[in-house]
Amino acid sequence: MIFHDDTIAAVITPPGEGGVAIVRVSGTKALPIADRLFRCAGTSPSQRGPGTFVYGKVFDPVDEIDEALLLIWRAPRSYTCEDVVEFQCHGGPLPASRILRACLSEGARPADPGEFTRRAFLNGRIDLVQAEAVMDLVRSHSDRARAAALQQLEGGLSKIFDTVYDELMLVAAQVEATLDFPEDELPASVPQKIISEIDRIQTRVNELLRTWNEGHLLRDGALVVISGKPNAGKSTLLNALLGHDRAIVSNIPGTTRDSIEAEFLLEGIPLRLVDTAGLRDSEDFVEKEGILRARKYIERADIHIHMVDMSQLADEESLKAIDALDPAKSVLICNKMDLPVLFHVEQWPNVRRVQTALEKIQGINEVKESLKSILSGSVDLSARPHVVISERHRQALLDVSRELKQLETLFAEDCGDEALVLSVPMLREALIRLGEVTGREYHEDLLDQVFSSFCIGK
Amino acid sequence: MIFHDDTIAAVITPPGEGGVAIVRVSGTKALPIADRLFRCAGTSPSQRGPGTFVYGKVFDPVDEIDEALLLIWRAPRSYTCEDVVEFQCHGGPLPASRILRACLSEGARPADPGEFTRRAFLNGRIDLVQAEAVMDLVRSHSDRARAAALQQLEGGLSKIFDTVYDELMLVAAQVEATLDFPEDELPASVPQKIISEIDRIQTRVNELLRTWNEGHLLRDGALVVISGKPNAGKSTLLNALLGHDRAIVSNIPGTTRDSIEAEFLLEGIPLRLVDTAGLRDSEDFVEKEGILRARKYIERADIHIHMVDMSQLADEESLKAIDALDPAKSVLICNKMDLPVLFHVEQWPNVRRVQTALEKIQGINEVKESLKSILSGSVDLSARPHVVISERHRQALLDVSRELKQLETLFAEDCGDEALVLSVPMLREALIRLGEVTGREYHEDLLDQVFSSFCIGK
Repeated sequence: MIFHDDTIAAVITPPGEGGVAIVRVSGTKALPIADRLFRCAGTSPSQRGPGTFVYGKVFDPVDEIDEALLLIWRAPRSYTCEDVVEFQCHGGPLPASRILRACLSEGARPADPGEFTRRAFLNGRIDLVQAEAVMDLVRSHSDRARAAALQQLEGGLSKIFDTVYDELMLVAAQVEATLDFPEDELPASVPQKIISEIDRIQTRVNELLRTWNEGHLLRDGALVVISGKPNAGKSTLLNALLGHDRAIVSNIPGTTRDSIEAEFLLEGIPLRLVDTAGLRDSEDFVEKEGILRARKYIERADIHIHMVDMSQLADEESLKAIDALDPAKSVLICNKMDLPVLFHVEQWPNVRRVQTALEKIQGINEVKESLKSILSGSVDLSARPHVVISERHRQALLDVSRELKQLETLFAEDCGDEALVLSVPMLREALIRLGEVTGREYHEDLLDQVFSSFCIGK
Repeated sequence: MIFHDDTIAAVITPPGEGGVAIVRVSGTKALPIADRLFRCAGTSPSQRGPGTFVYGKVFDPVDEIDEALLLIWRAPRSYTCEDVVEFQCHGGPLPASRILRACLSEGARPADPGEFTRRAFLNGRIDLVQAEAVMDLVRSHSDRARAAALQQLEGGLSKIFDTVYDELMLVAAQVEATLDFPEDELPASVPQKIISEIDRIQTRVNELLRTWNEGHLLRDGALVVISGKPNAGKSTLLNALLGHDRAIVSNIPGTTRDSIEAEFLLEGIPLRLVDTAGLRDSEDFVEKEGILRARKYIERADIHIHMVDMSQLADEESLKAIDALDPAKSVLICNKMDLPVLFHVEQWPNVRRVQTALEKIQGINEVKESLKSILSGSVDLSARPHVVISERHRQALLDVSRELKQLETLFAEDCGDEALVLSVPMLREALIRLGEVTGREYHEDLLDQVFSSFCIGK
């Protein structure tokens, strides 16, 4: 247990109008601060049992700030494993900010983003993967994402990483043990066992790496870029999709939102729609720049929807646009099929094609099915939510995988003492990178990286 | 105590990203719902003592939704005077909305705006004036407003209204008693006493009415309209004012915000700045319409700032604008005094005048002093925060005042039996209107009116 000398405080509810706001204080001064600021009937806060709350008034310490509930936890049975108090006061900006200010003037300091959770990690209550799950849960935009984050929070993913770590550690131990044998006494089966173990671990690591796509889509959403001429029916499509599936529309952190036109959920995956026409129109209209930006968006897109008005004759620009579609991620929507068809698309057999008459609400389900079929390349939509890795985990696992591959190459050529000696630093490097995932191995930079994306108050 | 058969539930923290969200459930089913959805070590929620909280997991009821704290209150010692539980779960939109949904499927219904506080009122824990203070506190934009709302919440204003009510009730009782006397036996002093009592109450009512201006400014902010030619220095003024005094900028409910350019606090009073140029520029530029809108804003303004560039020669338009200033609420800012002065303003001795060189940061304090001097017509800025009435209270008090005036007129002409008989319905009307303020007298329409402006979850 690491006891921090300083006591930290923050408003832990979102800003804005609401019934209730909460100020959390954690550290050795939490109870003395509560004693000084909070007045209630009966015994003072520090004399009260943990797991209790009491109604009273908060003073600064002379003027009354607000009426509030005080919740009391005692180390180590709290979120941070330190003494913790929470003032639950009236919502709105003033009461909570005044209470926070009073706590600061009584000796607390403002908590950094994620610092409560950082302390929970430093004090050994959770590992880094669980800590990351806290913000994944807060930022989840779909029930599928929430369920995956919760499993991660409760140790589902940690257990998998720990198992891989333990297995790799066993390999390293075997290598060390083998090195202690005189070479000629070495049982032939041992290097073979090491090789097959490494192979098994590599398979596990690759399985984990494959969950990244799903994790990425759950956390960041799938980028859906819509292109097509004006009047092809893009806004009708947007409205039809939103009308059925609008769920939660709010910021997805860490992504630029300038051009996002709409967000909706499809099978628990948040989709973020960008209209390339919008890209062209924004800013001081520079057509060339707009086309360049549109092209970049299309390259980054998880799904590219191209819309064609089938009642119009094909022109060269449209034909070129369809030619350029990437079949793996594109849907060609042939709209206005209820009108006499003048545009013919038979020449692109590889591109997913959906015929619609959106004005008559025909074809929407088919559009959704085609989007799902693209998503199913990354996510098993029929499976129950399960733990998935994040970009940070992926980077570490890629390093681990690289080391494992080197080990395999090494042992494929030579199973002798020399190979065993050479394998030691590779195994160590792989263990370090694996250890960094759950935080068995950590350094300040790593923690700063993990917690910098947290919100204040978590 | 009114026990409601139905149990209500709502998310009581603001939407958005934060560490913690809370779902509150109030009513007879609150504890059974907690038993069904919440699993924790040890005894089940309904077996636990009030004033305790416990850590556990929330299920829906099959799938786990989130880890959460459960807080337990028992009737009548709770916010609503009913059984109450609160689930304190992870922040963000998903966990709380899923828990709410689970509560609803277990028999709760969504709480209406203000319904928790409405139950606190119906169950006699607070009166209507205190109930209103809850939202005043949540919506307070300055410490002065917060302090005033807190005093109101704790009964400061209620006590004043109750005193006036009791005094008026005493008058009514005296009138009734006097009516029982045979007319010739009536002690001459009694009607006299009634008249002086009514006079005293009228004085009190007028005192209360005078606090409305301050209440209005604290709650809605002072509307400050800036006019003046382009390049007179309006944005420089805005930046200078904001640079010093920017405090809390957020929505003030119930006011149109389309044209608000900036908000800042001056001595605890929120000022909302509107630039008349902005009024003219917005929408499809229709100059006549713009001028009309600007004029309407200037009429409604609490403060009107007109800016003149002193380095430019006066033109007719400028002279007309200054002529039209209302001395009671206008400040004429003579800017660019550091340049050779070509514009002369001596002909308007009645208008508050401030000379500035804003580019050189000269005169800002003088501008603020002049704004304060206008505000001090409505608010005693040197006084400590005190309770102030709202628009609803004002309407009731105006009715009371009107009845009292009629009573005074009546008794001035005739102190006999007939006048006493005529006074009875007037007194009754005044008592009803006074009673409606604190809610001694209430009907559904009145409650709907009071609580409709509340947020969900309060």
